[in-house]
This record gives sequence, structure tokens and C-alpha cells, in this order.
Amino acid sequence: MLRDKNLVCVGDFERYGESILPKNALDYYRSGAGDEFTLALNRDAFRRLRIRPRIMRDVSCRDQSTTVLGTKVAMPIGIAPTAMQRMAHPDGECGNARAVGAMGGVFILSTLSTSSIEEVGAAAPNTVKWFQLYIYNDRDVTRKLVKRAEQTNFRALVLTVDAPVFGIRIADIRNKFTLPPHLSLANFEGIKATGVKSESDSGINEYVKKLFDQSVTWDDVRWLKSITQLPLILKGILTADDAAIAAGLGVAAILVSNHGARQVDFTPASIEVLPEIVKAVNGQCEVYLDGGIRQGTDVFKALALGAKMVFMGRPALWGLACGGEDGVKSILSIIKNELDSVMGLTGCATLEDIKKEMVVHESHYSHL
Amino acid sequence: MLRDKNLVCVGDFERYGESILPKNALDYYRSGAGDEFTLALNRDAFRRLRIRPRIMRDVSCRDQSTTVLGTKVAMPIGIAPTAMQRMAHPDGECGNARAVGAMGGVFILSTLSTSSIEEVGAAAPNTVKWFQLYIYNDRDVTRKLVKRAEQTNFRALVLTVDAPVFGIRIADIRNKFTLPPHLSLANFEGIKATGVKSESDSGINEYVKKLFDQSVTWDDVRWLKSITQLPLILKGILTADDAAIAAGLGVAAILVSNHGARQVDFTPASIEVLPEIVKAVNGQCEVYLDGGIRQGTDVFKALALGAKMVFMGRPALWGLACGGEDGVKSILSIIKNELDSVMGLTGCATLEDIKKEMVVHESHYSHL
Amino acid sequence: MLRDKNLVCVGDFERYGESILPKNALDYYRSGAGDEFTLALNRDAFRRLRIRPRIMRDVSCRDQSTTVLGTKVAMPIGIAPTAMQRMAHPDGECGNARAVGAMGGVFILSTLSTSSIEEVGAAAPNTVKWFQLYIYNDRDVTRKLVKRAEQTNFRALVLTVDAPVFGIRIADIRNKFTLPPHLSLANFEGIKATGVKSESDSGINEYVKKLFDQSVTWDDVRWLKSITQLPLILKGILTADDAAIAAGLGVAAILVSNHGARQVDFTPASIEVLPEIVKAVNGQCEVYLDGGIRQGTDVFKALALGAKMVFMGRPALWGLACGGEDGVKSILSIIKNELDSVMGLTGCATLEDIKKEMVVHESHYSHL
Amino acid sequence: MLRDKNLVCVGDFERYGESILPKNALDYYRSGAGDEFTLALNRDAFRRLRIRPRIMRDVSCRDQSTTVLGTKVAMPIGIAPTAMQRMAHPDGECGNARAVGAMGGVFILSTLSTSSIEEVGAAAPNTVKWFQLYIYNDRDVTRKLVKRAEQTNFRALVLTVDAPVFGIRIADIRNKFTLPPHLSLANFEGIKATGVKSESDSGINEYVKKLFDQSVTWDDVRWLKSITQLPLILKGILTADDAAIAAGLGVAAILVSNHGARQVDFTPASIEVLPEIVKAVNGQCEVYLDGGIRQGTDVFKALALGAKMVFMGRPALWGLACGGEDGVKSILSIIKNELDSVMGLTGCATLEDIKKEMVVHESHYSHL
Ligand SMILES: Cc1cc2nc3c(=O)[nH]c(=O)nc-3n(C[C@H](O)[C@H](O)[C@H](O)COP(=O)(O)O)c2cc1C
Ligand SMILES: Cc1cc2nc3c(=O)[nH]c(=O)nc-3n(C[C@H](O)[C@H](O)[C@H](O)COP(=O)(O)O)c2cc1C
Ligand SMILES: Cc1cc2nc3c(=O)[nH]c(=O)nc-3n(C[C@H](O)[C@H](O)[C@H](O)COP(=O)(O)O)c2cc1C
Ligand SMILES: Cc1cc2nc3c(=O)[nH]c(=O)nc-3n(C[C@H](O)[C@H](O)[C@H](O)COP(=O)(O)O)c2cc1C
Repeated sequence: MLRDKNLVCVGDFERYGESILPKNALDYYRSGAGDEFTLALNRDAFRRLRIRPRIMRDVSCRDQSTTVLGTKVAMPIGIAPTAMQRMAHPDGECGNARAVGAMGGVFILSTLSTSSIEEVGAAAPNTVKWFQLYIYNDRDVTRKLVKRAEQTNFRALVLTVDAPVFGIRIADIRNKFTLPPHLSLANFEGIKATGVKSESDSGINEYVKKLFDQSVTWDDVRWLKSITQLPLILKGILTADDAAIAAGLGVAAILVSNHGARQVDFTPASIEVLPEIVKAVNGQCEVYLDGGIRQGTDVFKALALGAKMVFMGRPALWGLACGGEDGVKSILSIIKNELDSVMGLTGCATLEDIKKEMVVHESHYSHL
Repeated sequence: MLRDKNLVCVGDFERYGESILPKNALDYYRSGAGDEFTLALNRDAFRRLRIRPRIMRDVSCRDQSTTVLGTKVAMPIGIAPTAMQRMAHPDGECGNARAVGAMGGVFILSTLSTSSIEEVGAAAPNTVKWFQLYIYNDRDVTRKLVKRAEQTNFRALVLTVDAPVFGIRIADIRNKFTLPPHLSLANFEGIKATGVKSESDSGINEYVKKLFDQSVTWDDVRWLKSITQLPLILKGILTADDAAIAAGLGVAAILVSNHGARQVDFTPASIEVLPEIVKAVNGQCEVYLDGGIRQGTDVFKALALGAKMVFMGRPALWGLACGGEDGVKSILSIIKNELDSVMGLTGCATLEDIKKEMVVHESHYSHL
Repeated sequence: MLRDKNLVCVGDFERYGESILPKNALDYYRSGAGDEFTLALNRDAFRRLRIRPRIMRDVSCRDQSTTVLGTKVAMPIGIAPTAMQRMAHPDGECGNARAVGAMGGVFILSTLSTSSIEEVGAAAPNTVKWFQLYIYNDRDVTRKLVKRAEQTNFRALVLTVDAPVFGIRIADIRNKFTLPPHLSLANFEGIKATGVKSESDSGINEYVKKLFDQSVTWDDVRWLKSITQLPLILKGILTADDAAIAAGLGVAAILVSNHGARQVDFTPASIEVLPEIVKAVNGQCEVYLDGGIRQGTDVFKALALGAKMVFMGRPALWGLACGGEDGVKSILSIIKNELDSVMGLTGCATLEDIKKEMVVHESHYSHL
Repeated sequence: MLRDKNLVCVGDFERYGESILPKNALDYYRSGAGDEFTLALNRDAFRRLRIRPRIMRDVSCRDQSTTVLGTKVAMPIGIAPTAMQRMAHPDGECGNARAVGAMGGVFILSTLSTSSIEEVGAAAPNTVKWFQLYIYNDRDVTRKLVKRAEQTNFRALVLTVDAPVFGIRIADIRNKFTLPPHLSLANFEGIKATGVKSESDSGINEYVKKLFDQSVTWDDVRWLKSITQLPLILKGILTADDAAIAAGLGVAAILVSNHGARQVDFTPASIEVLPEIVKAVNGQCEVYLDGGIRQGTDVFKALALGAKMVFMGRPALWGLACGGEDGVKSILSIIKNELDSVMGLTGCATLEDIKKEMVVHESHYSHL
């Protein structure tokens, strides 16, 4: 069926997915904060980077495998945590987790998932899974999520640090975004499970405002480290200063991200800040990136600039919308294949061969 | 009624307001000088600034209050002086003054208002009000306006220094702009009240050419200071040199402005010159900004670059057009709420937390 | 009649003029070389320059008068030489010369005019007139033109140095551009008068290729100086190096120009090279500019960057097309009035007050 | 017939050619890798370069002749190797070779041609011909091609070094690109001749993947030099580093190229990297360029920046499509004539007069 549609690049999945999703879900998935300047910038910033291929190197055996947090993965590409994936397709988080596992990548499950930690654990036992955390006013909520993730064999915790409140997304306000009644936030019960609804605003924003803790500080990072053995990743850092603090506190990794441009409009693109963050952490922890990854060249650029792994948010949702688990698998194969092509054509047989000097900003070429 | 229209951002008010205003008024409100290059630039220049959010700071109690000229205000946002507001809605200047007062901001009344100083004073006794001055050929006219403003409890004078003549606004010339006959310039009598009409050109330009003094110099600033105890603000400075002169003369504040791009086309955007002016005055007086403020991120950027307060001109007119006083209140709540969101998401609990290094020009990211 | 059309800026004349001109003439007037990149750039380059207004200066008496080559003129604006003006309107060169004379500017008559030196001299005896020269293979032709210009009271010679051949203008080739049969090149007889026709290419290009001397060098400048007492202006210099040579040879002035972008595409805009040329001649001779002047702010920018005078080519043709001599006068009044407005709003009572630091490139504002 | 169509610039041929080619061929010819960012950039990068004309130089005798690898050619323009030219027109490679020979340029025959080395040799005996090589897994294949080229009087070998695999061209994948059955890769027999077909992907990519050697290194350059006396040109170098290696190995020339933007998207434009490569080889070998050459100004810019010769790929295909051999000849005359015009208008009588300082990047003009 997917083959029939002749979907051959991620853009094809985006267009087709957007044509079939219901408006409430589509807008929630698609939109960014405010004017969506940074939403566009997340893509444009990649277009401003040039790739400098090297030639005459033996690229007959190309290998995308690497390790993250000590775990071997078959490709440097994972799926970022996005809330409420079953609005896209019944396969939802379980399908996503299975698909990326099959391709040898990493799956990050959102706190606000429509399938529970345990459901996903059971559906995709062999996938490398990490759990994304929000900190609720009631710390016990968070503590319990951590324990359940540990027990279900998730291998790391991803604390999202850019979301004390949720950004203003115009389309969701216009739609008075509400989680469809047949779905719930599956990790919870009661109001925490069904409270994403609104008659006057964005239901998700009201939910967050009511339940998330807006007073979290670096102390909470220390607290979190104290209650678990899982490695801790901070997701949503955009400045060298914060990266240095995080590295100093001994986090395992930083996931450079502007939350898919959904929080504050006019933040830099994540790829724009990657270099300063890589420099700031200076090897003390691993660095990953999400935001605007749509094709092999994007992955190549992020790796060249120092990311060890990249994650995609929306593309996995389009994959689900177009074909459930199979759709996600198609998208991942496309990108993996594109990365393989770029590697072959730039003289890189392994990820280590992708060097910083192979990617330059377009301004590099503005002087003769 | 406003709720029905689902107007959720300033752009919505702009679009709806422009759809219902009569052409004569719409063009007068909307237009800028010449090709309207700077009119667009006033917006675009904001889009070229990036916001760098800090994380893990306690933002559970956010506070937008500040002081201007020693007076406490609930938010750093006011309404800029715009002429002839009753063309937009019968509520006019009175409605505007009440609305911004209710939100805890500042109202600046134009000399060329369609409600008088006294009417506005009576309608909005508790609003922090400033009076904007033009200098007429007949100095007595100006002197009397100053006295009336003092007596009506206005707290400062805003001398507009960028308007010895009025700029060439093509649409007004095409329309032969004329103040509708049921309105008059309410601070005056006779020709000074009813003289905004033309059969061959822009009526307001002819009015200004006839009655305003084109020979004003820095001496007139000294003169004005000598006839009043009210603090004096200069509105319309665009260079560090003039800012330094003004600060040296002991003005209370500078309102950085290009008059909404209505005077000379191709001036820089006001946000572009803000940094050099803040640097030039070096704390000797307060600095404010108007021009292109349309959303919370704009306010944030201006504050980060050193403005203590920002003002909006056209948005208040759209607010009036869409819903009179209520419309203005809606717009102000939207922006205040947006600023609250940006503050929460950048780690700023108070306005003091908004630091210069949190805003950078996009060119900051053009080198890897 | 012109008033009826409500033509209030040069763009209005352009649009209306282009709607009524026959295609053959329209394309000849409008077009530039090649892709017309530089044609657009001549305008765009002005848009990249910002004006920095100074305030609180007495601008009650504004004066645009200046001197060129020792002659007093009422405004720093003249009409550039353009060929075959009677295609636009029967008033042609004579109407143009009268119109600009009435406004106190300078008229430059093209060698390739459709009214003769003597006709123009008789029609506009009081206008300051200069004569533009091309050097024909037959030097006697040029020598005779010089003598006739001297005898008819033209005050300077303008040698066009950027046209050993004519540029490739696609539209003229498609049209096989031919001078309408009721017109001729009025300064000549025989083939030199009627030879602008073609059945396979651009008629004007074939004319030039056949008759102009492609071997002219700086020696010909010396020769020209030796045969006349008239001051010599070189039109078409685009580099500091050539400007220095010209100044060294004692020319009276340089007219910075890329021939209205009609010769080589991708040359810089004339306003782009003005600063380096002003610097190179270092006061040894006067410097003027043409290319893309369409409004008062353009004139202001060119003067700020060191031009003593500016010239317009196409606008005079649109003026003619829209209303003959009256149309040209309207256009000139519009621009003069616009310049007056800019001067008033930037604190400049005289042309001397327009300082270099009042104009900056937009990149000036790309760092905070 | 061509005259009827009034095709007067390369863009005309492109538009007309694209209107008549069948989709399968059109897409194969037209498309670039990925998003086709670099495809557009190959053109845009030329638009960012300005030409600085010099004046008053004797340009009455203009001469485009030069030498390449010691051979005299009448113009610095050749035809780049493109595969399968007979899809455009039955004249195919033979017509192309004849046309460029007639104009005095150079023809490079692709390995993947639809006419054989011998056919082209016989059809265009007097044309300066070079042979482009791909290295097959089976080295004997390559060795035989070299021998045949030598025997057929080809004067140089052009080893394409940017194609261990072929880039991902979306349109070809959608079309499942297949060589039309009446054509074959004429230099081969069996599967190597007819294997460009696919039912699931791009047929040419599958062909290349199967048959080309992905393990070639600089050693293979040494090997190639060891098996032939013909001068060796490396085609597809984009960095100074690789250029220096190549020059060090004693290649005769480097053809700077990104393969018409068909391999990795987001590589720099070839004209962007030309200066660094010219600098790196420092005269040790000749440097040529292809990619985006469409008009005389492009040739001028490439020569100014140090290329001794330029090549065009797609334009020759459009020429073929529009009129076979004659169409190609028309295109070449147009460009030659355009170059002649630029030379005349910049004071360059010979190619040696085209100096580096005559071309600058637009950023040269962004400071006053
Ligand atoms: C619909 C949607 C929901 C998201 N939900 C979450 C979430 O629950 N937790 C989280 O940390 N990030 C969330 N994100 C942010 C993503 O993890 C990720 O940062 C972003 O999508 C990456 O950008 P991309 O969509 O351009 O790939 C969400 C993003 C989207 C688009
Ligand atoms: C319709 C209109 C009328 C204005 N009238 C005045 C005025 O009477 N006095 C004054 O000092 N500024 C006047 N201004 C300028 C505004 O005070 C202010 O500088 C400008 O509107 C700010 O830009 P904004 O409209 O983009 O917010 C006017 C602006 C507009 C749009
Ligand atoms: C239709 C046309 C004809 C021209 N003919 C001549 C000419 O005969 N001699 C000359 O020196 N320049 C000629 N020029 C160039 C103009 O003198 C002048 O450099 C140019 O028009 C200025 O640019 P503008 O049209 O943007 O004002 C011509 C320009 C145009 C548009
Ligand atoms: C349809 C097509 C086929 C090509 N085939 C080959 C080829 O077989 N061998 C090769 O070295 N380059 C090939 N190229 C690349 C060209 O040699 C050349 O680098 C490129 O076309 C130059 O860019 P241009 O098309 O913008 O002129 C091909 C290009 C195109 C457009």
C-alpha cells in the first residue's frame, strides 16, 4: 500500500500524512510556537550548511553503527519523544518503538504517551528504549514513572528541561485542542490521564500549567540522579552556559533541542547552537541533537558538527499516519539509505570519518 | 463578540480591523512613508534577532512590573501616541486610555487627538498618562497644552522630535486624506481643530506644514524644560549622537522611534538603533522603544537590548476598530500573556532577569 | 489630464507609461543587458542603504541649489542622455530639455537623439545643456558634433566610455528593434541617421557595431580635450582605478554609471561603486551618478556618498510617455519635493548638511 | 526551424527543450540530488559575483582562443560528459561532438554514451575529444576503454572521481528510470550495455552500484597513469586538500565539478570552490570548471577566477533536444557571442586580459 503511494522521501510522507490526519491532530503535530519562525528555521539552518566531500577513499564497506551511552546501535538515528502518538495511528508508541528497534535505532517514550511504559516495553522488548520525563508538581508522580521505566528495561532517562510551561501554539488555541475521548495519557489515571481538554484554550497547555512544576532548578537534576541508577540525559539545552552546568553536574548526555520549535519562537535552530555546546562540554558527556532532521544530509551535518546521535520527532508521526509501524520503518530506511549515500559520496566509510571540516557555513564561500 | 471572532493574536486583530475600517482611516493608520521599506523593516528587524533561553530556573512566580520615571507599572508595555483615534471607534482615546490603565500600562495622548486632554483625563483618571507635544509656530499654543496636561494630572511630556514636517505617505496623498467632518482635533478650536482636510494632497501634511514650527532646535528643549516641572521625554531619536545630546541636556527619557516608519523611508528600524542609543546614554536617562512591537517576543527583545518600556501604536488602533475599549484590552492581555510565556520559557521570573546576552543577531550563528 | 490619473510617485508614471508605450519602444527603453540582474540591482542597492536622520536642527528654509562645473543649478537632479526620445512622445528631447530647464536642473542630450543639437538648442535656450558623445570610426563625425554643440551653447561634453559595443538586450533581439520610420537620428544624415533597423537582430546594436570605434583608449580623451574648450565629463566609469586615471588626465567630472544596466549584466550597481570612486578622485574632479534614481531618498543617498549631482534616464522617458513635457515636469517636481521632505526630516537645510555618516549600509546593523 | 522559435539565449533552449522531451529523459537530464539545493546554487552562486569592467582599452580585435593541455582551441568552452545523449535526439554524442568541433571547443565523451568511442571518433574526426572514465569493478573493462580511446585519437582521459556510487535523484526513483529499449550503452556489450533498467528504483543507480568499483583510491590514479600516455584529468574535485593531492600526483588538469549537483546535495557550487582550488594547485596543473555555465558572463567569471576552460553539461542536451547538432551549434554560438560582448565591454581583447580583480563577490559591496 505504501509502495503504491510512491513515497520516496520524508517530504512525501509529510505531504501525504498531512492530507489524511484530522485537523485537531494535524495541527497539534505540525505546529510550532508563535509565528513559527523557528519552526521554519530548524529546516533552513540546515540548508545554510555546505558539505565538502573528500574523494578517492575506499567506501566499499560502509558502516553506520556507533554506541550511545555504551550501547551499540546500528545507526545514529532515533525517534524523539512526542506526546500522544496514537492520534496518528492505532500502532502509536508501540509501533514506533518496534519500527525503530527493527532498524537498530533508539526509541524515546514521552511521559505524555497514549500507550503506557509497560505496553511499550512489552511490544518492543528488544528495542533500545529511553524514557522522557516531565516533573510534576507532585514529585511522587515523577518518582513512580522513574521506577516503572527502570522496571520495564528502559535504559536511560531523558529529562526535558525546556518546558516549565508549554509554548503558545496558535493553531491549538484556535482548535481548543483536546485529546480525542477514546485515548488517554496511558501512564496515568484520573485527571492526569484524561485532563487534556479545553473549551477555551489549548487543552495540553492547560494540563501542563496545572500539573507541571514551574519551579524546577538544577537541584532537581541532583535529586533525580539520587533516585535512580539510569543514566540521565537533559533534553532542551540551547546555550553553552547551560551545557557547561549540565556537564559539570555529571549528566550522561545532552540532547540539544528547541522542542521542535514549540516553546519559544525565535530561539536559534538546534543545529545552529550545536557547535557551541559541543565545545562547551568538551567531551565530558555525549551530545545528541533533534529538530528539523529530515534527510541523510541533515544527519551527516549534525554528526560532523559533533552530535553522536540524532532524533526525529514529526517524521515518525507522519510515518505512523501514512502506514503505522510499516510507515515508520519506511521513513527510517529512507533516511538510513540517504546517509549511506552521503557517506559513500564524501569518502566516509564509518561515522568516525565524518569530520568537522567537512561541513561549513555558507558564509565560508562569501569571500573569494 | 470578540470571542466569536476567535482573535487570538495581534495579527488576527490587524487582519480583522483592516477588513472593517473605512479606506480613508485604514490607509492613514496603516501606511508608512514612501515605499514603506522601513514599515516592513520595523517588523523584519525583530525577526533577525534570536532568543537564547536559559533553563532550570525557578519561574513559578513571574512578575512583569517595573517603574518608569519613578512610577510603578504592572507591565512594561504602553500605548504610543497616535492621532485621531476616534476614526477607529467612538471609544477613541478615552477607551484606549481606560484599557491600558486597566492592564497597568502607560497611555500617551497625542496632541492631535480627537478627544481632549480633559476628556481623557476624566475618562481614565487612574491610568498613568503622558502627553505628547508638537511645537506650533505659535509658542503660546504649546505652552497652553503643557499647562492643561499638568492640570489634568498627566505625568510626563513626550516631545516628538522627528516631525518638523510630516513624511510623504502615498496612500494619504491618493486619498486626499481628510478628517471625517463629525470629528475634530479636540484640543483646539478654529482652524487648528478642523484644518485636517485637503482637496489636493494629504490633509494632515498640509495642516502640519502650515502650523508646526520647522525651526525648532535643542534650544527649544531647554525652553520646554523651563516652563514645566513635568519630566520630559524625547520621542523620535535614531542616532547615538542625538541621544548623547539629549541625555546631556537632562531629559528624563528617550523614546527610540522612527514614528512608525511614517516620516523618512529607509531609516533603520527602531530596534536596530536601540543598542547604540542605550550605549550612548549610558544610564543617564531611561530609554523606551516603539515601532513594530506586535508580540511578546518583541517586547522581550527590546527589554533585553536595554529598553525599560515599549509602546505600541497601530495595534491599539486595530484593537479599537475590532472592539473599542474591550478590543484594546484583549490585545494588551494577549501580549502580556505572550511575554509571560517567553519569560517562563527563558528562565526569567522578573524583568531584571532578561539579560542582554539572551538576544543575539542572527549573524551570531553564521560562523561555525 | 495627468492629475486625473492621480500619478503621485515615479512608480505611478512607470506603470502608466509602460501600459501605453508600443512594445518595440517599451522594450528598448525598459530593458537591461542579459538576465537584467544589474537592472534590478540598480534599484535594490539603494534599498540596502539606511538613512540616519539628525534632529532638532532649523530646517525652516530648505535649499537644494548647488553648482556643477561652476554653473549654479536649482536642484542636484538632471536628465541622463537617452537615445531616441521621440519614440515616447513627439515632445521628445525638446520637451525634456524644456521641462528640466524649468525645474532648474541639467539636460544631457544623446548623440543618438531624434531631435538635433540645433533643434534642442532652439527649443530650450535657457536650460543648462550638455552634449553626450559617442566616438564614430570616422573621427570627423565626432569632431563636427563637438563643434555644433559648442556653437549651440551646450556647456559641457559627456563622453560615454562604456560603449565600444552595445550590450546584449534580449528583448531588442526578439523584437529585431528598429527605429520607427517617421523618426531618424537627427544629428546625422544618410545611413548614420536611418541605420537603426534590423531584420535579424537588434537594429541599434548593428548600428553601433558598424559605426562606433571599438579601439578608443585614453589617448582619445587627450585628443578630445585638444579639440575643444568645453569641460569634459566621462560617463560610465565603475572602478577606482579608471577613476584615478581619468582624474589624472584632468577631466572635469566623472559620471558614475553602468549605462542603466544595459551593457554588461552583473556589473555592480552604480551606487555600490560610488564610494570607492569618490575616494579615488579625492576631490580632483566632480563626481555625479546615474542608475536607478527614482525617489528623493535615492538622491539623498547618492549625495551623502559623495555625488554632486544625479541624473535620471528612464523616468524622463516615462514622463514623456505619460504627458510629454508636462509629464517630465511632474516627475521632476515629485522628486524635488521628495528630496525636500527627506532634507527636512534629516535636519538638512542645505545640500552641504547631507553628510556621509547619514547613510550606512544595512550590514551596519547586523551586529548588536 | 530553430530560427522560427526565436531561441536567442540558453534559457530559451532550456524552456523549449524541456517542453518537448519525454518525462523519463527530461527528469534524468534535469534533476539533481536530493532537494536540488545545489542544483539551484550552481546558478545562484554565479549571480553573487559582480563584474568590474575596465574602460578605454582597444577591443577592436577580440580573440577567445587559448590552449588546453598544449592544444590550441578557438574558445574556452567545451561540452561536459553526459550519459546517454541519444535520448535527447538521434544525433546524440556524434552531433554534439561535431557541433563543438565546428565551434572550436572541446568534447568530452562519457563512458555511459549511447554512441561508441569509435562512432564518435568517426563522426567528428577533427574535434578535440577527451574520454571520460568510470572505473568498473572489473579493471579490464576500464583498461580496454582506455586503449580504445587512445586508438580513436582521443587526446586525454577524464577520470570522474566523485562517483563511487550515484547520488539519490528523486525524480529518477519515482520514474524508475530506464534507458529506452532502442538505445544501449554503446561502449559495452551484454549487461553492461543494456543494464540501465529498473522496476523499483533508478535504473542507472542500480547499474552503477552493481558494476562500479567503490574502493578506488589515489592508488588507482597511479595505476591509470601507468597504463596510458594520455594526459589525465580528474573531474569532481571540490576541496583544496584533494586538489593538492591530485596536483602532487602529477595529473595534467583538474576539472572542478560537483557533477551538475547530481551526487551529494548541499555541496558548494563549483564556482564557489574554484578560487581555493586554483590557489591550492598553484600552477602545477591546469584547472577547468563545469556546473551552471549558461551564459557569457558565467564563462568570464570562471576564467577570471582562474579556470582555463569551462564545460557545459545540460545546455548541450537542450541544444540536442531542440535541434540536434544544429541546436548545439546555436547554443555554442550564443555563448561565444555573449563572451565576446562581455570581453568587449570590460576592456579585454584576449583571455589573458581577464584578471582576477575583475570579479568580486557581492559582499565586496556591503561596506561603504
Ligand atoms: C507533536 C509533538 C509532541 C511532542 N511531545 C514532546 C514530549 O512529550 N516530550 C518532549 O520532551 N518533547 C516533545 N516534543 C519535542 C520532540 O521531542 C522533539 O524535540 C522535536 O519534535 C524535534 O523536532 P522535529 O519534530 O523537527 O524532528 C514533541 C514534538 C512534537 C512535534
Ligand atoms: C496612525 C498613526 C498616527 C500617529 N500619530 C502620532 C502623533 O500624533 N504623534 C506622535 O508623536 N506619533 C504619532 N505616531 C507614531 C506613533 O507614536 C509610534 O511611534 C508608532 O506608531 C509606533 O509604531 P507601531 O505603529 O509599529 O507600533 C502615529 C502613528 C500612527 C500609525
Ligand atoms: C532607453 C535608454 C537609452 C539610452 N541611451 C543612451 C545614450 O544614447 N547615451 C548614453 O550615454 N547613455 C544612454 N543611456 C544610459 C543613460 O544615460 C543612463 O546611464 C541610464 O539610463 C541611467 O539609469 P536609469 O535609467 O535607471 O536612470 C540610455 C539609457 C536608456 C534607458
Ligand atoms: C544528464 C547528465 C548526465 C551526466 N553524465 C555524466 C557522466 O556520464 N559522466 C560524468 O563524469 N559526468 C556526468 N554528468 C556531469 C557532467 O559532466 C557535468 O559535470 C555537469 O553536467 C555540469 O553541470 P551543468 O549541467 O550545469 O553544465 C552528467 C550530467 C548530467 C546533467
